[in-house]
Amino acid sequence: MNDEPACSIERSLQILGERWTLLVLREIFAGKDKFAEIQSSLGIATNLLSTRLKLLVETGVLCTQTYQVPGSRPRQSYHLTEAGRDLRIVLLALQQWGDQHRPRPSGPSALRQTRSTGRPVRVALVDEDGHEVPLTDVVARTAVAR
Amino acid sequence: MNDEPACSIERSLQILGERWTLLVLREIFAGKDKFAEIQSSLGIATNLLSTRLKLLVETGVLCTQTYQVPGSRPRQSYHLTEAGRDLRIVLLALQQWGDQHRPRPSGPSALRQTRSTGRPVRVALVDEDGHEVPLTDVVARTAVAR
Repeated sequence: MNDEPACSIERSLQILGERWTLLVLREIFAGKDKFAEIQSSLGIATNLLSTRLKLLVETGVLCTQTYQVPGSRPRQSYHLTEAGRDLRIVLLALQQWGDQHRPRPSGPSALRQTRSTGRPVRVALVDEDGHEVPLTDVVARTAVAR
Repeated sequence: MNDEPACSIERSLQILGERWTLLVLREIFAGKDKFAEIQSSLGIATNLLSTRLKLLVETGVLCTQTYQVPGSRPRQSYHLTEAGRDLRIVLLALQQWGDQHRPRPSGPSALRQTRSTGRPVRVALVDEDGHEVPLTDVVARTAVAR
């Protein structure tokens, strides 16, 4: 464990720092849980998708369930763990940045809003009371020696 | 432009979906702005770092300035644009996730807090008034046809 990077960003990227991984998670957040569904939606090579899913299961981001279509062999479906669900904010932050700084002429593909009122929401920094803190007032202080 | 992906996550990952890119940005956020500084801090191959920095400049995430140490040839230093500064929340979201789900026995390497009061902050979703919205009350609604 001693060669684990001290930086949490780096430890996260050991799992996530690859374009396909985050797109696979996007599909699973969108409700696709079967290998064939994810594969055909992304057009990713099957061996690459196997490797990505395996890593996500081994690192506790996804868990598997066995399902069986009558007449076929048993297969695995893929589901988010708590750690996986917590990645939603990372994907929403990427989506927000893309909408702002990589816009399409036709506008954003998805709008983030509250389920209850339909009001727009955005990713931001908040204090312990859930009130927004401006990014300029945020510092990351070194907690322990590397 | 028509082969640009409709999904903002995917457009963001066209620039950022690679481990080194986000680590290069981490170094620049930490105040390192010279090629040699970033290179020695990350231990990244120089040709790989050149490619990453070039992409980040071409896509408007970084801009360059020329500086010259007496007796040396002019060199470029690298600085965040507004689009680059806005990526800080993506890095903070990754850091937060890493602290929670890829923890080290010795604890987090950095604490996110307010500059003014030192109170802890976290990445969350807020409404237009800057009040936190629970993740379970957030939906991403399709805005336009792909």
